[in-house]
Amino acid sequence: MDLASVRTTDAQRPVRVAVDAMGGDHAPLEIVIGAVAHARETPSDEVILVGDEDRIRAAAGGPLPSNVSVERSGSVIEMDEAPAAALRAKKDSSIVVAMDLVKRGRADAVLTAGHTGAGMAAAVLRLGRLPGVDRPALAVQLITSKGPMVFLDIGANPDSTGENLYQYAHMGTLFAERVAGVSAPTVALLSLGEEKGKGDARVQRATALLDASTLRFIGNVEGKDLVHHPADVVVCDAMLGNVTMKFFEGLSSYIFDLLREEFRRAPRGPIAYALMRPGIARIRAKFDYERLGGSPLLGVRGTVLITHGRSRRRMIGYGVAVAAAAARARIPELIAEAFAEGGPGRLPGDRPGAGAAMSPEPAPAEASIAASEGGEP
Amino acid sequence: MDLASVRTTDAQRPVRVAVDAMGGDHAPLEIVIGAVAHARETPSDEVILVGDEDRIRAAAGGPLPSNVSVERSGSVIEMDEAPAAALRAKKDSSIVVAMDLVKRGRADAVLTAGHTGAGMAAAVLRLGRLPGVDRPALAVQLITSKGPMVFLDIGANPDSTGENLYQYAHMGTLFAERVAGVSAPTVALLSLGEEKGKGDARVQRATALLDASTLRFIGNVEGKDLVHHPADVVVCDAMLGNVTMKFFEGLSSYIFDLLREEFRRAPRGPIAYALMRPGIARIRAKFDYERLGGSPLLGVRGTVLITHGRSRRRMIGYGVAVAAAAARARIPELIAEAFAEGGPGRLPGDRPGAGAAMSPEPAPAEASIAASEGGEP
Repeated sequence: MDLASVRTTDAQRPVRVAVDAMGGDHAPLEIVIGAVAHARETPSDEVILVGDEDRIRAAAGGPLPSNVSVERSGSVIEMDEAPAAALRAKKDSSIVVAMDLVKRGRADAVLTAGHTGAGMAAAVLRLGRLPGVDRPALAVQLITSKGPMVFLDIGANPDSTGENLYQYAHMGTLFAERVAGVSAPTVALLSLGEEKGKGDARVQRATALLDASTLRFIGNVEGKDLVHHPADVVVCDAMLGNVTMKFFEGLSSYIFDLLREEFRRAPRGPIAYALMRPGIARIRAKFDYERLGGSPLLGVRGTVLITHGRSRRRMIGYGVAVAAAAARARIPELIAEAFAEGGPGRLPGDRPGAGAAMSPEPAPAEASIAASEGGEP
Repeated sequence: MDLASVRTTDAQRPVRVAVDAMGGDHAPLEIVIGAVAHARETPSDEVILVGDEDRIRAAAGGPLPSNVSVERSGSVIEMDEAPAAALRAKKDSSIVVAMDLVKRGRADAVLTAGHTGAGMAAAVLRLGRLPGVDRPALAVQLITSKGPMVFLDIGANPDSTGENLYQYAHMGTLFAERVAGVSAPTVALLSLGEEKGKGDARVQRATALLDASTLRFIGNVEGKDLVHHPADVVVCDAMLGNVTMKFFEGLSSYIFDLLREEFRRAPRGPIAYALMRPGIARIRAKFDYERLGGSPLLGVRGTVLITHGRSRRRMIGYGVAVAAAAARARIPELIAEAFAEGGPGRLPGDRPGAGAAMSPEPAPAEASIAASEGGEP
């Protein structure tokens, strides 16, 4: 994402980002250092570090800048806890306290590197869904040969419907346009063939809804074309999105590990490596997911960015920047406007009949997210 | 796959493989050359080349070995045709004639590099499902750090149920054990988290069925662990399997293309490449999917192997070998035995109650496969 491309409207609006200082493999040290670094670089933003005050101040290793404050919390939700139970038992946990800051209007966004399931559940339970949104979706910017592509849902809700995918397409389009800086974003559905309409019942239903909408829907993308596809927003069910996103991570790491091993193993590998250093750096830059900051949870009443549990200071710094950019772009407000104009379950700009066909009953998003146990999304 | 590991029972049984000589991007030339090469190497196998006799004999460029014969067919189903309509219109096409050879007991297996949707539809329509099998599944041997993993369904039927996944697990286990030579294969479900039972409703249902079965079920595998996971058989719905398998192809090609470009671009790239040549060859060997031969369609009344549309002689040779190995191992007969013993919808070795919970109504596999339009699976 190119932060410079964030729309200039409100570009100077100061925003307050509540950072869950206790969540993540390297919390609080790396979280605090990364968040404070962002605060120093962007004095107009305010950072609220949520967690154990003594440990936060120790991690900072000196006085905090004037635009950084500390909000105390009690317990921490560990990676191996079941989110729903943990949230019930730990109402003073850093993630709940951070969400409550947004709920009470004391912060504009939350960034967490903690337990993804707990982060999503806390957002839905404490902030709630936006009116008209049946289910929130977790998005990511997937690395492709032409730059990042907004890709959702990567894990908020399995068992989605065609109507859910249709709503994800609207939310992803707003994020692509207003935060990732894409002009007139195009939308595609991830499926098992490239012909429009080919796929399961869910994809077929979403195809009918998207065809009848004003979104720039360009049909299906299949697995082999995902890294080169022109679509700016790609939509799918959580099972497909989650497996694809994590398989990207697993497969690319495997290939790069094999290469590293061969450069080490070859008798003149270090020479070959030295000759190839600029090229390897170029490839590494293409696969640098840290600067994408993390995964926005779209469809809740507030800006929530969930970042990698393994994040260190650099990715946390980008995470705070992306959370601030999304809050500054008023993504939740834009989604609310888009979904409210045509009435519940009806989207503006849809041709008559398309919106009316949507289910009047929202899916039980809270139950679904809360039931999703485990760590990473 | 290590062909030497095929069980010695029946290892010497000669089998007859009907090869669709007209299907694939490089048909008939590469198909004929690859199939004839296998026939020369394995004199006990019989190869029946199905297609235009003049073109087949021209492609062979000389007299055919005594264990190769030609079966004439008329039309060819092109890659851009809708399978169901094409099969109705072209009853004399090479893929239909090849299936009919198996149906009439004149061949034991079919290999095709043609239109995947048409190949699957022809198999289901001409051969039919095995008794007790609700839906056939297309499998592949996915490349992992520990060797090939049997992975299904990669595209036969979207909108599968938990019961379908459960049947795929049984069929995949038989293929892993009897063709891929894995002793006591373990089974996992591909899902959005590694905790057993985490996933959509389909995965939860399959988990209950697998837990109650005698299969060696070891829980979930998530996307990031797929390339290193110890499971021998991984099961999922066609949407997930198809996207994952094709994303593997697209992403790995992208990374290798980037590397190739950097080796070309660097001033001393050719020197670096020369130094790294053995290592690059080792990596290439790991990603050599050609020797896996293709994708077995499991659950139909006959051995059917669908291989890559871009296959050239080398992959076709392996394809004929794998098709012959699967026929020799009597995979369809073993599936029929396994699914028939406990009665329809009931699998042997299941604890009481597990099988009984299966849907008595088979899913409309024919309709579903026939409705899948387009080229590659």
